[in-house]
Amino acid sequence: MTDLTLLLDRRLMRARKDTMPRQRRLYELLRQAILDGRLLAGTALPASRVLAQDLGLARNSVIHAYEQLAAEGYVQTSRQGTIVAALPSRPKPPASSAQPEVPVGAMLSSRVQSFNRRRTPEQDLLPFMPGIPALDAFPVRTWRRLLQGVWSDPDPALLSYRPALGEPELRQAIATYVRTARGVVCEVEQVIVTGGTQDSLDLCAHALADPGQRVWIEHPGYGGARVAMQAAGLRVVPVPVDDQGLAPAGALWRRQPPRLIYTTPSHQYPLGSVLPLARRLALIEQARTAGAWILEDDYDSEFRHDGPPLAAMQGLVPQAPVIYLGTFSKSMFPALRLGFMVVPAALVDRLQGVLGDLVRRGQSAEQVALAAFINEGHFTQHLRKMRPLYAQRQAALREALARHWTWPGEVLGGACGLHLALTLPDDVPDVLAAEAALKKGLSPRPFSVYGMGGEPRNGLVIGYANTPAEQMDARVRQLVKAVNAGLAR
Amino acid sequence: MTDLTLLLDRRLMRARKDTMPRQRRLYELLRQAILDGRLLAGTALPASRVLAQDLGLARNSVIHAYEQLAAEGYVQTSRQGTIVAALPSRPKPPASSAQPEVPVGAMLSSRVQSFNRRRTPEQDLLPFMPGIPALDAFPVRTWRRLLQGVWSDPDPALLSYRPALGEPELRQAIATYVRTARGVVCEVEQVIVTGGTQDSLDLCAHALADPGQRVWIEHPGYGGARVAMQAAGLRVVPVPVDDQGLAPAGALWRRQPPRLIYTTPSHQYPLGSVLPLARRLALIEQARTAGAWILEDDYDSEFRHDGPPLAAMQGLVPQAPVIYLGTFSKSMFPALRLGFMVVPAALVDRLQGVLGDLVRRGQSAEQVALAAFINEGHFTQHLRKMRPLYAQRQAALREALARHWTWPGEVLGGACGLHLALTLPDDVPDVLAAEAALKKGLSPRPFSVYGMGGEPRNGLVIGYANTPAEQMDARVRQLVKAVNAGLAR
Repeated sequence: MTDLTLLLDRRLMRARKDTMPRQRRLYELLRQAILDGRLLAGTALPASRVLAQDLGLARNSVIHAYEQLAAEGYVQTSRQGTIVAALPSRPKPPASSAQPEVPVGAMLSSRVQSFNRRRTPEQDLLPFMPGIPALDAFPVRTWRRLLQGVWSDPDPALLSYRPALGEPELRQAIATYVRTARGVVCEVEQVIVTGGTQDSLDLCAHALADPGQRVWIEHPGYGGARVAMQAAGLRVVPVPVDDQGLAPAGALWRRQPPRLIYTTPSHQYPLGSVLPLARRLALIEQARTAGAWILEDDYDSEFRHDGPPLAAMQGLVPQAPVIYLGTFSKSMFPALRLGFMVVPAALVDRLQGVLGDLVRRGQSAEQVALAAFINEGHFTQHLRKMRPLYAQRQAALREALARHWTWPGEVLGGACGLHLALTLPDDVPDVLAAEAALKKGLSPRPFSVYGMGGEPRNGLVIGYANTPAEQMDARVRQLVKAVNAGLAR
Repeated sequence: MTDLTLLLDRRLMRARKDTMPRQRRLYELLRQAILDGRLLAGTALPASRVLAQDLGLARNSVIHAYEQLAAEGYVQTSRQGTIVAALPSRPKPPASSAQPEVPVGAMLSSRVQSFNRRRTPEQDLLPFMPGIPALDAFPVRTWRRLLQGVWSDPDPALLSYRPALGEPELRQAIATYVRTARGVVCEVEQVIVTGGTQDSLDLCAHALADPGQRVWIEHPGYGGARVAMQAAGLRVVPVPVDDQGLAPAGALWRRQPPRLIYTTPSHQYPLGSVLPLARRLALIEQARTAGAWILEDDYDSEFRHDGPPLAAMQGLVPQAPVIYLGTFSKSMFPALRLGFMVVPAALVDRLQGVLGDLVRRGQSAEQVALAAFINEGHFTQHLRKMRPLYAQRQAALREALARHWTWPGEVLGGACGLHLALTLPDDVPDVLAAEAALKKGLSPRPFSVYGMGGEPRNGLVIGYANTPAEQMDARVRQLVKAVNAGLAR
């Protein structure tokens, strides 16, 4: 008996601050002692009455612990009492408990070996981080009121699994919006709600392409697209962009024919060029011939600064092999995690069955609230407020760069959206500049992170949307100072 | 002029009920006419003043429409006026606009060709659908209050992209819960919040295995696991289960060595057997030798009806190659779309970088509210109310089956969770029985849908959680009647 009470040690029973009941704790200690060999097979455990007394526990607690051990096969109970069972082929833990048996690299799949994103949510909030909207300008109270409305007396069905293609009222609201605002030609049936563009890309990669097939991605381009495609087992082919957007050489169609083509025709990400009509039509024609799907990522066209938005590629030609991708991460807020796809009518029915298998869709309250947000006019109103705000912030950034930026370079993009691209001379490496900036609490992104494996380009992508105009001058001065300090080292 | 006004047709300009402004409508009609060749290259458009008069529009509307067409390259403006541009290499739409150029099957990837889930949210709400908790018993008001609290004055950071591994307070709450309630041995760092078990499986399949590698899945077993693995390009190997759960033949380890092993040891899905300790230890040992990961799906152990829950496999052996998967779809509600994984400590750091790339995480308000729901005791309280409710509903189902079921068969499972499995004799094919039931508004699931390609078994999985006990007798009588009618046809 002494042995066991020592082993179980009252202080240990009481030391832990968590809320585990003592019978559970007793069970845990006995189980561990059996597993690690401190209690050998054949050992008789003390009678419950005795152990309860020894440990100052209720007898019922001991009985429950014994029962559970018996249920799981750790002990056997008979008239003779409770006996520790013989454990067959117990696995040995690795030699040193600090070291895993296999290197972590080998635990991961090959396809994700290159993935190692260390960006934190804190970094996302720093000045100049691209892709972050004006978070403090979002009408939180309106949103809260609409959510509250959904939750005030919800049909229990709203708590269950929801339609794979999205809530009907949200699909309708999106259809109306993209038809009028983006020249997308679609019926509501063609609209599919997703968990944001990353989710849309995942779904397209898996539903439309098989491992080993090729995907063309703009170079430089959106890193999230590269990751989604590589994870799906596809081979990424970088396709250069020029000042008119995606520019595949003619031979590429023969030599490396794509199954998917990822492009940002309305505002190339991150360089900002706009794909002209002639190239759009040619791309559609060639994609159709090649049996390829075009994924048109229209990530920031809501915020056009130089006139009405260009019409989407999707609506240019009837039955074009184009899937239009939209997101609410910029127009609402990123944490909402809602986006959408507009797919050709011929694909909808089969895709519904596929998505029904692939995804479990929920977030019904958020979807219904977003539909109300759009239908009651708050969405249009919010965009109408954000456009001049972002235009003003972009202008402030341009002015500050003109005033303080000391290196030769060109400002690219800015026809719409939330960022500018700034080319750098070779003697100011973008990675070094971005690192120096980050040390000072600024987060422009080097062109390098948008590289797809093609010819490297040198420059910074600078987001302006989440920085007030009146702070822009000071921030750019800090940036110049940081880059200078980085170069001096 | 007459031609163009006919082409543009005032009535058409006004017919549509959507909110598109008329200048946008004019632009659309002209653009379409140019694209489909009704307006040929070189055609001069009328002066804006003239067209405005003809159509009864403000002149500014016409000017804006022309400007946009010019910006997109549809027309050229010069002193001579506005001339339709020549469109290079215009793609031709397919011959019949009703028919797609390629069969839809060919548009989809091979890996999803077999996916075609037609289950609707309405079907999910029918009596006997497995996996749906008691939706009307969820404390909606408490949940609304907690969400409201998060939204009452949120830090703008909560609206941005959020940590890839989940909100810190939710990870902490989950760690405390699984340690005490599930015998999971972990630090908070090992807990990763996901968008539900389907998302967890997707992440594991991609981060831990490459296309062509093998995954063992229990047969019969969870269809969602099969889909996730096939989508990731893995080869599914069905492994039979017996009345003690997963039972791989020894030779299988050599002949078809797995990279992943998907299992439900605490309550085999859907047959309900419990994997005994000896098999658990052997499985861990053999998986370690094979370099395989065990995915332990603990989908419904919160609702144990026959005593305290069994400890998870995850905590059995130090550094076992086990990833523990939990979900809030049953314990909270499915539409919440939150679940979690507990991964070995050695994997956490690299996995963080991989997930940072693979996923964009948000739903911050829901995550923070869920943490509060757990920390304030509502979660435990809800489970404490649901356990007897589900036990009562299960008992009612058993009694009703004993009273009315006319075919020989065995009731399996029910030690925990939300469903029972009922075997059927060969002359009552489960698919036929399930179809007949569905016609009468009942939704038990045939064993067939849980098949993984192994030896077929015949029976029905019957969910009882979302059906009040007092209705159970009538529902079972309806089911018997429906199956009889189905057999008679």
